[in-house]
Formats: sequence, structure tokens, C-alpha cells
Amino acid sequence: MTNLDQMGKNAKVAGRQLAVLSTAQKNEALLAIAAELEQQMGLVLGQNALDIAAGREKGLSAAILDRLLLNEQRVAGLVADTRRIVDLPDPVGEEMMGRVLPNGLRLSKRRIPIGVLGVIYEARPNVTIDIATLSLKTGNAVILRGGSETLHSNLALVNVIQAALEKVGLPQAAVQYIDNPDRALVRELLRLDQYVDMIIPRGGNNLHRLCREESNIPVITGGIGICHLYVDESADLTRAVDIVENAKVQRPSVCNALDTLLVHPAVADQFLPTVAGRLAESGVSLRATGRALEILQQDGHGAKVDPAGPDDFDQEWLALIMGVKVVEDLDAAIHHIHTHSTEHSDGILTNDWANATRFVKEINSSAVFVNASTRFNDGGQFGLGAEVAVSTQKLHARGPMGLEELTTYKWVCVGAGHVRP
Amino acid sequence: MTNLDQMGKNAKVAGRQLAVLSTAQKNEALLAIAAELEQQMGLVLGQNALDIAAGREKGLSAAILDRLLLNEQRVAGLVADTRRIVDLPDPVGEEMMGRVLPNGLRLSKRRIPIGVLGVIYEARPNVTIDIATLSLKTGNAVILRGGSETLHSNLALVNVIQAALEKVGLPQAAVQYIDNPDRALVRELLRLDQYVDMIIPRGGNNLHRLCREESNIPVITGGIGICHLYVDESADLTRAVDIVENAKVQRPSVCNALDTLLVHPAVADQFLPTVAGRLAESGVSLRATGRALEILQQDGHGAKVDPAGPDDFDQEWLALIMGVKVVEDLDAAIHHIHTHSTEHSDGILTNDWANATRFVKEINSSAVFVNASTRFNDGGQFGLGAEVAVSTQKLHARGPMGLEELTTYKWVCVGAGHVRP
Repeated sequence: MTNLDQMGKNAKVAGRQLAVLSTAQKNEALLAIAAELEQQMGLVLGQNALDIAAGREKGLSAAILDRLLLNEQRVAGLVADTRRIVDLPDPVGEEMMGRVLPNGLRLSKRRIPIGVLGVIYEARPNVTIDIATLSLKTGNAVILRGGSETLHSNLALVNVIQAALEKVGLPQAAVQYIDNPDRALVRELLRLDQYVDMIIPRGGNNLHRLCREESNIPVITGGIGICHLYVDESADLTRAVDIVENAKVQRPSVCNALDTLLVHPAVADQFLPTVAGRLAESGVSLRATGRALEILQQDGHGAKVDPAGPDDFDQEWLALIMGVKVVEDLDAAIHHIHTHSTEHSDGILTNDWANATRFVKEINSSAVFVNASTRFNDGGQFGLGAEVAVSTQKLHARGPMGLEELTTYKWVCVGAGHVRP
Repeated sequence: MTNLDQMGKNAKVAGRQLAVLSTAQKNEALLAIAAELEQQMGLVLGQNALDIAAGREKGLSAAILDRLLLNEQRVAGLVADTRRIVDLPDPVGEEMMGRVLPNGLRLSKRRIPIGVLGVIYEARPNVTIDIATLSLKTGNAVILRGGSETLHSNLALVNVIQAALEKVGLPQAAVQYIDNPDRALVRELLRLDQYVDMIIPRGGNNLHRLCREESNIPVITGGIGICHLYVDESADLTRAVDIVENAKVQRPSVCNALDTLLVHPAVADQFLPTVAGRLAESGVSLRATGRALEILQQDGHGAKVDPAGPDDFDQEWLALIMGVKVVEDLDAAIHHIHTHSTEHSDGILTNDWANATRFVKEINSSAVFVNASTRFNDGGQFGLGAEVAVSTQKLHARGPMGLEELTTYKWVCVGAGHVRP
């Protein structure tokens, strides 16, 4: 029987132990996990085969089965990723600020682990290793809850991690897994505010909504991107075609992929057919409205073009579909983005200094782009060394979250018998 | 009829306008509020008199009536506070980080307002001016919900603010007040995640719990302090008496006041009677256990000493009462604090380097003290210039929150036609 309360208690105790480890000790544990994973590869692949067989029987799509699949190459990738985290700087202990107050008190802010993380995720088993190793590096204990389709794989991976932790003398409760597929346990986890300090959901809109609505614990929401590019009158149209293609086509199933293209009327006649033609090469179909629809229906360069439905500008497509609209000017572009964006990744393509400046000032999305693809909104691309999630909320972290975003701070105040006057 | 959805919409629009104001424009609005408050002082005092009369009729205590009361001096204080905020640095627009990535993309993090704040508070009308002016300075719109006992006063103050906003051409929806005392509206506010970005409760445990449990919006929890001082074997006992007295007595009704005193056995015989005698002068009564109770019952220097009940070490006293316990050593002190602290303010009094270092490393409260009073955990004392709340949570802000903690950031990524490889 799963006893979440006990898991929470154990995680809190383990978190206190992890919080005071040196970086060398944490790196030793990471290396032990990598070694154990290499050793137990056969066992892990065997358990993964059970998930794949069950998935086939349930009729899961080829795409989903591919996401579930582990093979020697992928496990070797996980091993390499784990070793790579050893080389990342450890944010814990950093003095973020230090000063002496007028009364002689020495005041500083010191970076500390958050404590206990709860991570709820879907499908892919690599997230288990990802999150466990990043949590460990930052001195956090973690309670994991993965999708039922990968239960065997995830349990095998958690066993690997716990075996490694034991070998280096660290508490196994540093990384725990909720192995009971009963959905009620997710709600129970969300109410465990006595022990758990932060919930990170990694999945679709429904999971995020559930967490926001049911959790007593602070939740990092994000990962839902209705992303825009606005092609201004002065944009370099040749580069704009490349950027729109990259943003839409390079990996259409992810949150920083382009959803809606906004175009200034002065360049719409020239730009829209060209970009439609380029996108058609990758099989992108377009949902256009008003002037954009007229232009594309006249000359779509072979692209499939449909009239945009009433909700088509509120869609995160995650597919080779894109909304297209001609907007009167920069004002209208900003207004459209304010109305429809999820504040994930939005950009302007322009050569006009004032317009670029205004766009950057008025659009407060987690990442705002000028003359670059939205696909760059990513922890790896931004140089964070790792990515836990992409937040679109305003509190704690915004945009890609790396190791630093798995920490908080405390104030340290050192006196010599100081009392408050 | 109160239409919270409409209030939320208006706040969001107003927030967008505030977000792009210059510091000079925001300061102009603050000065207008100060001037308007001076001009309308008579009207405000008249409305406050209605609250006071109603409070008397309801039999509110003299202490509470005093908290509700506004007089010429107190309003002048609010005017002065508002003008003081003009001089504080505006955090909005600060570039927190800026670098060029290897591929030539220029990446920066820019500080922006949070957007729309929801603040739920009790009794004191000065909070209305406080929060409204700090929100304005940081470019945030705010929806206020005060206690019903100060409804007339709060509405008068909000009218003053809105009149001033109108005079300087800013939207009145920048500062809105929920004037309907129906409690259901608090729950409605907590579900307004479409428009509101952060909830700050300022009140007791029940309000915090309600917000944590009912809110879809990120909540800043805090303000509840079960605070500890541990007097180590090597402590300077003369200074320790001063610090304990200051932490317990200077303002016992606030969250950073001392609740539990832990003492090393080697100094308990000497220290406990002395500190008890000093505290007795201010009428502090003690709840002691075990060895501490024995010592104090033998020689309490006139202090009122009772055996500690089972929950007495889990009390935020907010009164002239203090728990006392002799703990075996530093380990036991840390264990007690880990078990009973709300992670607000905890300290060690010691002359032992290793013990001070260990305490600071292992105690992760929002502020950790060495040889200083817990009363210093305060935005003003820490030099933040203002205090919105004291957070004891791990996300976003920890400890005293000033202006910076009312902001978030966005990533700005500037390219020259960059696409992701």
C-alpha cells in the first residue's frame, strides 16, 4: 500500500541530509548512478520491453510507442547526460548578496535547496533520470509520479538510482516513486504541503489545470505555448522565411514551436505566398483569416489553406498547422498577442529600431525575440546547461528553468549581540 | 453588484498600462496620492469615525480599535510614507543578466512587473495605502480586499487614490477595492487566475490556510513565526539576556518575536534564573519542560513559570509567553528547530565558530541569526526600504519582501536572423 504521508516524511528527512552535502559528495552520487545504469542496462531494457508490449496491446500510436522506447543507445544517452550534470556548477551555497548594515550587522543571502520537489509527468522514461539527477545535484529530495504506460521502465530506473544512492551512503528516500497507478494519489500528492515544497507538472493542459486547481503546494505552471511571430513592414523577408520555417517546422510538437504568424499589410502580398510555399514543402497547412486568406487563396504556392475557425488563434497546434493573419500595424500585432498568447515565446521580425524596442517593452512573455526563432526558448539553447521545465508564470521562475531555479535562499544575519532599537 | 470578473479584466488592462510607465510617471502619481490624501484628510477621518463607532458598538477591544483608528498624525504618517516611496529605486527595467551566446544571440533577463496582485488583509487601514503605493511604484495593478471593520476607511482611502490617479491620467483600475463584504468574494478572487498573478494574504493562520487551499493563483504564504533562539554553551550570557529580552519583549505581537528559548545544559543553571528575572520585569510568563522547569521552579527570579503543555512548543505566542527547554547539545537544538519551527526566524547565541557555522548551514529558515535578535527579520531593518510581507515559503521570495519581490523577469533574445540548428 502506498503511504504518501510516510513518503513525504521520509523525503523531508532525506532533503535535510542532501541540503548539507558538498558538491563532491553529490557528484559522487551522480557518477554512481551513471555506473549503475550502465551495469543494469539489460534489466532496464527488459522492463521497458514489458511497457512497450503492453502499449502495443493497448493500441498506442507508433509515435507514443517511440517516446516510451528505451534501447541501448538511448540508455547510453541517459548515462552521458548524468555524467554531464557532474560538470555543471552547483548553485547551492552561493552568496547572492552580502553587505554590512549601518548598525554593523552582516547580512547576506545564501542559496539553498528548495527541499522536497513533487514532479508529475507523462510518458517518457528519460524524465525519471533527468529530474532525479537535477534534483540530486541541487540537494533536493524528489517524489516522482510518472505515467502508467511507463511504470515498469520507471520503477527499473528508480531502482537503479536507489541502488546507487545506497552504494554511496545516501538515503534512498532522496528519490522516491509513487508506484500505485491510482489517480487519487496524484491529488493526495498535491495536498502534501506539510512535506512537499514545489510541484512541477510536465505534461499537457489538463495536468497543469489539475495541479493549479487542486494543489496546496506552489506549482510551476508552464509548458503551454501559443507562440507568435510578427513580420513587420521593414523585416528582412528572406531571413523571415527562414525564421518562420524554423519556428514552425523544426520540431512542431513542442511548446516553443510557432502557432500564429502575424504580418504587416505592406509586405503581406509579397511575403505570404513565399512563406506559404516554403512551409508547403514541409507539409504545413495554414488557417488564415481576412486579407491573409484572400492573398493565400489567390496564391498559396501549393500550401493547403483553410479559413481560420473562431478558436484557431487560441490553439497550441503542436502539429504542422499554423494560423495566419494580416494585422494593421504594430499596435494591432501587440494587441493580438496580448489577447491570444500564453506568454511563452513571442517575437518580432523587423529592421525598425523603434518598433523592436516597443515590442520588447510591451510584450512580457517568458521569452521575447527580435529577429530570431521562438525555438531558442530552451534551457540548453540559453546556456543553462539543463532544463527542468519552461515556466510561463510570474512567480519564482519565468522561462527555462535550470539548476538555479531548483533553489531558493535564506537570509543570514550575523551580529555581535545586536538588539533591535 | 460586485463583478469580480470585470474587475479582473480591468486590472489586467490597467496593469499593461502601468508596466510601460517611466519611473518619473509613477513617482508623479505617488506625489499626487500624497497631495490628495492631505487635501481629503477631513473626509477620510470622517469615514474612519464611522468604522470606529461601529467597532465600539460591536464591542471590539481597545487594542483592535486602536489598530483601526486614523487621526491627523497617522494620516500625516501615511502621506510621508507615500512620499518616501518616491525616493526608493524602481526595480522595473533592470537588466539582471546580459550576455552574448556563442552563436551571437544577445540574451538578457529584464525585470518586469508581476502584473495584477490580489491582496487580502485584515483590520489596519494603513495597509491600503502601503500596498497600493508599493504596487504602483513597481507597475503592478492591485485588487484589494480589506477587513469589514475598516470598510468605510478603506473606501475613503481608495477614493483618494483613484482621484489622484485620474488627475495624472492613469487608469483608476490600477487600484481597485472589493467593497462587498460577502465572504464568497474572497473565494472568487482566489479563483481569478485568468487575470490575477499573485495573491498576498496578510493576516492570521486561517487566512493563509484558506488561500493555500482555495487559490488557483500562486500565493505568498508567510507571516507565521514560531521563532527560536538557542543559547549555546559558549554564549556571552550577558548579551544573551539582552537579546532574548529584545526578541521576546520589544514587540511581542509580531511574527518575528521569540517563541521558544533553547538552552545548553552547561549554562542552564546560571542562565535560566537570570533571563527569567529579566523577562519577569516585562511580565513574561514561561512554559518550561524537564530540566528547565526544575531549574526555574527552584529559582525563577519572580517569573511566572508553568509546565509546558503538549502543544506549547508549536505555538506562535504573539503574547508575553515563552517556551523554555534545556536541550542536550547543538544536535538536539537543531532537531528541535527542524521539528517545531515555521522557518521564519531562528538564531544561535554562541562564541563557538564551528557551532555557529553548523547552525547557519543546517537551519534553512527565512532568516537565520547568529548573536542577534530575531526581531531584525524585517524589510526595514534589512534595508529593503519597504516591506510587503514576510514569506516563509520556498518559491519566489523568502523572508522580507520589498519592491524587487513585486517583480518578475522576462528573457529578451535578440538575433540577426538566427534559426535553431
